[in-house]
Amino acid sequence: MKTARVAHAGQIHRARPHAEPNRLVLDNGRVVGEQDVVWLPPFEARTIFALALNYADHAKELAFKPPSEPLVFLKGRNSLMGHLGVTRRPADADFMHYECELAVVIGRETQRVKRAKALDHVAGYTVANDYAIRNFLENYYRPNFPVKSRDTCTPIGPWLVDARDIDDPQQLHLTTHVNGQCTQDGHTRDMIFDVASLIEYLSSFMTLGPGDVILTGTPEGLANVQSGDTVVTEIEGIGRLVHHVEGDRPEAV
Amino acid sequence: MKTARVAHAGQIHRARPHAEPNRLVLDNGRVVGEQDVVWLPPFEARTIFALALNYADHAKELAFKPPSEPLVFLKGRNSLMGHLGVTRRPADADFMHYECELAVVIGRETQRVKRAKALDHVAGYTVANDYAIRNFLENYYRPNFPVKSRDTCTPIGPWLVDARDIDDPQQLHLTTHVNGQCTQDGHTRDMIFDVASLIEYLSSFMTLGPGDVILTGTPEGLANVQSGDTVVTEIEGIGRLVHHVEGDRPEAV
Repeated sequence: MKTARVAHAGQIHRARPHAEPNRLVLDNGRVVGEQDVVWLPPFEARTIFALALNYADHAKELAFKPPSEPLVFLKGRNSLMGHLGVTRRPADADFMHYECELAVVIGRETQRVKRAKALDHVAGYTVANDYAIRNFLENYYRPNFPVKSRDTCTPIGPWLVDARDIDDPQQLHLTTHVNGQCTQDGHTRDMIFDVASLIEYLSSFMTLGPGDVILTGTPEGLANVQSGDTVVTEIEGIGRLVHHVEGDRPEAV
Repeated sequence: MKTARVAHAGQIHRARPHAEPNRLVLDNGRVVGEQDVVWLPPFEARTIFALALNYADHAKELAFKPPSEPLVFLKGRNSLMGHLGVTRRPADADFMHYECELAVVIGRETQRVKRAKALDHVAGYTVANDYAIRNFLENYYRPNFPVKSRDTCTPIGPWLVDARDIDDPQQLHLTTHVNGQCTQDGHTRDMIFDVASLIEYLSSFMTLGPGDVILTGTPEGLANVQSGDTVVTEIEGIGRLVHHVEGDRPEAV
């Protein structure tokens, strides 16, 4: 089962795919076109965890050694944005790199869980694009705020796919296309710390709960995006997340 | 005006002080003893920002130069705990240092606000104790997870004091007492980046919103706490936050 969270006619609804393509069934039974709703992040996010350098090829691309323990940082909820939205390219960005990532949504209280049982705590999976504004990066191991918490710079969705429908989250193909051209092509089997290990690690010293989400890192294939680009991050069996990039327009308050 | 958020008789209530000491008036009009409720964090937290090295004396104590721009990191909501609660000292902690801090709660959408108008966006103030588990600290400028996001290691409260009742957040005296002995004695005038500057800084590249909270850093006076200690962090005119420290008891899942 997969569900989206969409705004339509003054309300927020859960939605599922309709038998006909490009249509959705809302939780009130109404059938609408995919373009006739505003897609929101497919779950209510609590804490947003993200991984740095969790694919060996990406660490190599950035000239770093693979880490010996997970390099986790937090992101602000202001950065989240749904499918088909507009990501604002900050006026002060020289380099804005997409990062296609498997997002793991926690489904229940999780404390000191062992790796073998860790996936039982997952509600579902979705696709995230964890943009980095690289000219502000001081430290690859723990990216700072202006790099990773800009408004709209974490598109996520479209679907939350039930964890029971994914046999193995380490057997998924990831791609990014910019304006139709494939620029990133990777596989979740290449994660240094797999999903279960990440849950074991985090829950060893803090309690995870429903709505917490782990963005599990990105494989190699960085490229700078510009205003006007259409970016598609896709994960096999999880979803195809589309968004547009436009320039930021500062307005004084 | 100041209000607390407390659990009593199966429900969560807003509460205010009663004319008699040690009593509260709940939002349903009922009068209860301060010890007869469970005190919760006095607001619903969204993103939790914290400052490293924002008092020059504390930076000196840690042998660091004062920073040239605010050093901000994020914390997990799992770390928050209300007044009179029990902070679990992690079994793997060699050094667990309290940090008495003025907590600034944002009241409305805040984007690119200038310093002169920044305090208009504050809903209120409260007291936080931003514990650090120092033996895990790899980088003072951006503390990592096991240092700053342990469960129960950010006591906060008891009151949310309306911003309109605080003439100047830079004119407040802070103290910490451990088992009755004063171990930290500072003043918010010694912040390197004042409250208004922090709001200007953060809102220059991300949108702040209701429930976002900024823990504004701590003055000098670190000391290690142990299981059995009672710790009181107090800020003049804002509140007196009391909590107890007990050992962690790991339970396998």
